[in-house]
Amino acid sequence: MALLDDLQWRYATKAYDPTKKVSQEDVDKIVEAARLAPTSSGLQQFRVLVVSNQEIKEKLAPKVLNPEVMVDCSHVLVFAAWDRYTEERIDAIYDRTTEERGLPQGRFSSYTDKLKEMYLNQSAEENFDHTARQSYIGFALSIAQAAELKVDATPAEGFDPALVDEALGLREKGLRSVTLLYLGYRAKEGDWLASMKKVRNPKEEFVTEYK
Amino acid sequence: MALLDDLQWRYATKAYDPTKKVSQEDVDKIVEAARLAPTSSGLQQFRVLVVSNQEIKEKLAPKVLNPEVMVDCSHVLVFAAWDRYTEERIDAIYDRTTEERGLPQGRFSSYTDKLKEMYLNQSAEENFDHTARQSYIGFALSIAQAAELKVDATPAEGFDPALVDEALGLREKGLRSVTLLYLGYRAKEGDWLASMKKVRNPKEEFVTEYK
Repeated sequence: MALLDDLQWRYATKAYDPTKKVSQEDVDKIVEAARLAPTSSGLQQFRVLVVSNQEIKEKLAPKVLNPEVMVDCSHVLVFAAWDRYTEERIDAIYDRTTEERGLPQGRFSSYTDKLKEMYLNQSAEENFDHTARQSYIGFALSIAQAAELKVDATPAEGFDPALVDEALGLREKGLRSVTLLYLGYRAKEGDWLASMKKVRNPKEEFVTEYK
Repeated sequence: MALLDDLQWRYATKAYDPTKKVSQEDVDKIVEAARLAPTSSGLQQFRVLVVSNQEIKEKLAPKVLNPEVMVDCSHVLVFAAWDRYTEERIDAIYDRTTEERGLPQGRFSSYTDKLKEMYLNQSAEENFDHTARQSYIGFALSIAQAAELKVDATPAEGFDPALVDEALGLREKGLRSVTLLYLGYRAKEGDWLASMKKVRNPKEEFVTEYK
């Protein structure tokens, strides 16, 4: 099915059937869409943590906006961005890129020098503002991929990132959580939103053309 | 074609054939994917400006990272986010939602009260940090939709938002530009990236599972 149909089909699921699990194959595809996401300068400034462990989900549940969604869903994807830019991180990406493309090492050094000059002179918080934005690209593509597979999903910002970071040991990995994507299959009876019309700004308000 | 194939197909096009234009029908679909994007609390905190006017493109070109891409591409999509949250903006969305769903006005007032308490007590800059993030969800879905249509695209942050805002009168609309998406058809000969291998972090580095 085409993307626009998938986007019409999806909605932010509010109740999951706890007996239905998403297959590993489908989870892998949903993560793969995020892995293929374009990012600023190709740096892939984010990672995906996939939580299906019920103990971790139940530990986190009291701290999120929709605890029952966390408990009943099949998998929780955590999109976590680099806590800051470092010389090593930038070099690692470009070293891999030159190697995989069979280019001489250092092929992009004038470019990476510029990136380092820009990012390493910013605060960690400014860095994170930028890396977090990139994670939304992957987040969106995972949402689209879930819809293509008819896996229900709930994009969520309603959680305390510090608690998620602690529960998953993210700060030790140099990461900070940004968004969650709950995955599973809807429990139709319990979901007030399932039957509601999707509402969006009309096209004429949303877009302006300069021809 | 499936999303993962589309994402493998796409790349950040570096040279466009100036004689080839993207059809209005395809541009409409690419914008529609952004319009259908999920956003935090359903507020659709961003808009899309579509620039095909050559004069505007040439005026902006000297100020962007890849001037020839701006000049030669067919259309430039500008993703621009709300400069801040306001009571009126939040109410307008929820008034429409209740109306289109046939619910009583005020159905969501306890929720919108919470949103207002949170956002209206933040600075405009904090508000914009949040609205800008939402725009990346639409940005990503437009990138995916372009790929599905085999329209080449270049996601870009390499520009001066203040200049774009001024050229398009965005601040008067309460918007600030965040990203650009160039659309068109690749000029194969001029594009050093077209034949290069797509490089991404390997899956085992990108994802961590908690089973």
